[in-house]
Amino acid sequence: MLKPEILDPQGQAVQRALPRLGFDGISDVRQGKRFELEVDGPVDDAVLARIRELAESFLANTVIEDFTVRVEDPAEIAEAVK
Amino acid sequence: MLKPEILDPQGQAVQRALPRLGFDGISDVRQGKRFELEVDGPVDDAVLARIRELAESFLANTVIEDFTVRVEDPAEIAEAVK
Repeated sequence: MLKPEILDPQGQAVQRALPRLGFDGISDVRQGKRFELEVDGPVDDAVLARIRELAESFLANTVIEDFTVRVEDPAEIAEAVK
Repeated sequence: MLKPEILDPQGQAVQRALPRLGFDGISDVRQGKRFELEVDGPVDDAVLARIRELAESFLANTVIEDFTVRVEDPAEIAEAVK
């Protein structure tokens, strides 16, 4: 996601469109990127550290973006996606 | 995120670049969008249902994309973003 101090015109456009579309009560919208990485084998601390390094050096532009790395349970995703 | 059956050239490009960059053991990469919505007041079931509707009708293209809606704890984000 873009850092809070970086202007996000895409998010602002979405936010400004919402009341017109009948959705109130949303005070801010930010748009960003999301990467899903499928890892061979178990995701232990070493693998997670490597992925964090990868995110920091290649996937995110850390001058203007923050990132978080999170492990997802495939079963949980299957449940959530309808 | 793009549905599993939809080709994701951006994700593929990232995946193919990884071994060259010294990152092995990643079998798949998918790239997608992420929206952070700041809600006025508490996020109860009614608000969540509205947001799900909003995601389905305006933020995602459900012909080619799946989406998940998740409530984030601001404290948790502050912790994760270093």
